[in-house]
Amino acid sequence: MRQEFINPFLDAVLNVLTTMAQTTAKPGKPLLKKDNLSLGAITGMIGMVGEKTKGSWAITFSKEAILHIASNMLGEQLEEIDEMVTDVVCEITNMVTGGAKRVLSEKGYRFNLAIPTMISGDDHFVHHKTKGPIIIIPFETEAGNFFVEVCFENEKV
Amino acid sequence: MRQEFINPFLDAVLNVLTTMAQTTAKPGKPLLKKDNLSLGAITGMIGMVGEKTKGSWAITFSKEAILHIASNMLGEQLEEIDEMVTDVVCEITNMVTGGAKRVLSEKGYRFNLAIPTMISGDDHFVHHKTKGPIIIIPFETEAGNFFVEVCFENEKV
Repeated sequence: MRQEFINPFLDAVLNVLTTMAQTTAKPGKPLLKKDNLSLGAITGMIGMVGEKTKGSWAITFSKEAILHIASNMLGEQLEEIDEMVTDVVCEITNMVTGGAKRVLSEKGYRFNLAIPTMISGDDHFVHHKTKGPIIIIPFETEAGNFFVEVCFENEKV
Repeated sequence: MRQEFINPFLDAVLNVLTTMAQTTAKPGKPLLKKDNLSLGAITGMIGMVGEKTKGSWAITFSKEAILHIASNMLGEQLEEIDEMVTDVVCEITNMVTGGAKRVLSEKGYRFNLAIPTMISGDDHFVHHKTKGPIIIIPFETEAGNFFVEVCFENEKV
């Protein structure tokens, strides 16, 4: 997987959270993910298929982080991960995917439209089923942590 | 969602399990799903986008059912939901999607390629984010139950 596949997702995440949720997030050092344990309470995940490569990316929020973000986006104080919060994660996942796709398209990587998957529940595991390393980037916000995972196959030669 | 969207997935599930895992499954009565609680230990899920409609489907296995199926497919006795079992669920999800896509294509519904998502863990929730009813079909096997969920939007007119 090329480094240039990571940054469009990170940039889009920061951009979406700033503009939609007035939330500043600070990215930490990228790590190679070794297991499938999702490190939060709710995950938005989407598979992306293009002519040159395919892969998936996911965003996993701690309960504190997503309640803060969703409350800011919706303009009301939310206390539990309910259907409204799930919809916010879905919207974030779609917006980040759209932003990253636009940048990747300019680099010559076009992807089909796809539908995101939402998963919630304590200690759930998400599995990237693409043959490629899984890069995980931790983020800090004033309200808690979240993680972005990106996994794409090496492109066909 | 049209009834004709359900049967291609059911037929493909029965076909894949019979031919690949020597497992006979008996479908029960389809139900309208009211909440997002996944009723098993591991789920394969995939979003499908076409010109006329979009949606997602999922297959959720009890631990007993998937260990029986995976053991039959791989020819060795498996005791835990590990990476090998996750790969089997991914393969089943891909094969059923392929089979259903072929039948739907003959009816004039073509879909883009997509990447499945695997989720494991007790009491996880999966959320279909398409605007349509979620139909859930329970299946019985000699080794335990599994469930198939199908959710597609009404087609554009």
